[in-house]
Amino acid sequence: MPESSQPTLPAVVERHLARAVELAVANVAEGGGPFGAVVGLPDGRTFEGQNRVTRDNDPTAHAEVVAIRAAAAAAGFDLTGAALYASCEPCPLCVSAALWARIGSVHYAADRQDAAAAGFDDAAFYEYFSTGAADAGASSLLPITRTVVPTQGRPFTAWTEFAGRAEY
Amino acid sequence: MPESSQPTLPAVVERHLARAVELAVANVAEGGGPFGAVVGLPDGRTFEGQNRVTRDNDPTAHAEVVAIRAAAAAAGFDLTGAALYASCEPCPLCVSAALWARIGSVHYAADRQDAAAAGFDDAAFYEYFSTGAADAGASSLLPITRTVVPTQGRPFTAWTEFAGRAEY
Repeated sequence: MPESSQPTLPAVVERHLARAVELAVANVAEGGGPFGAVVGLPDGRTFEGQNRVTRDNDPTAHAEVVAIRAAAAAAGFDLTGAALYASCEPCPLCVSAALWARIGSVHYAADRQDAAAAGFDDAAFYEYFSTGAADAGASSLLPITRTVVPTQGRPFTAWTEFAGRAEY
Repeated sequence: MPESSQPTLPAVVERHLARAVELAVANVAEGGGPFGAVVGLPDGRTFEGQNRVTRDNDPTAHAEVVAIRAAAAAAGFDLTGAALYASCEPCPLCVSAALWARIGSVHYAADRQDAAAAGFDDAAFYEYFSTGAADAGASSLLPITRTVVPTQGRPFTAWTEFAGRAEY
């Protein structure tokens, strides 16, 4: 794969976003959430996703995550040079998934205000990270606490000593 | 499920964290990353996860996400009252997954400095959110851009008009 993606033409962005919106609309009638996504690889292949949280009982099955998983299953876990197109502004889960997949750019159509008007409010989750609440473990939304256990260093020792490790 | 979890005893936390560490150590020998996790439900059931990013070609298959998916597949997408135990401090992907799953508390053993010493540096991803880079779309790490398309409101219209929608 190339180190970075080619500049993406506006017409390509609009076409993939329109497709992501189509997927979102279709998903509602099928019992899923109103979100769709497309991952475009540098070689031109595309992979689609629809929100399957309630259909699959998977709280991580956001449209973007589903599309990223599909692309990675086909092309490998490193999607350097790929672009993610989402019918609506991605939440922190989906942005994080794009970061780990080494996706190069994210494009979206509707924004978080549009989503909030329909009852989807990711703003609290963005605030959780932007205020450093996750960092400090101080949030009442989700307290994060460290407890030291004697064996906790062993996984990293095993990792650094294992010659066959596959880095990512 | 209860609205919130019972206070978790220190001995329970230590036992689940020790198990998460065991899973992490075992995963290295099996070709995975040095991370393990356990989800504990209010009813006492536990679900385990190991990092499968490279083994499964899934950049979202962090140990915590794998454990959350397993728990949700068995108990439903709303894991209110559950606790997440991770061998190492969870990254933004895993914290976001816990937020969406409505998990009530997160516990971890090794921290991000331990992970960084072994070559895993999530700090840039935390910084991406804490600096508001994701918000502003201004980061060179992952630019996020809005493009308005004419159909973008249709998914939410379909959603609000669909009487059979399953909210989450």
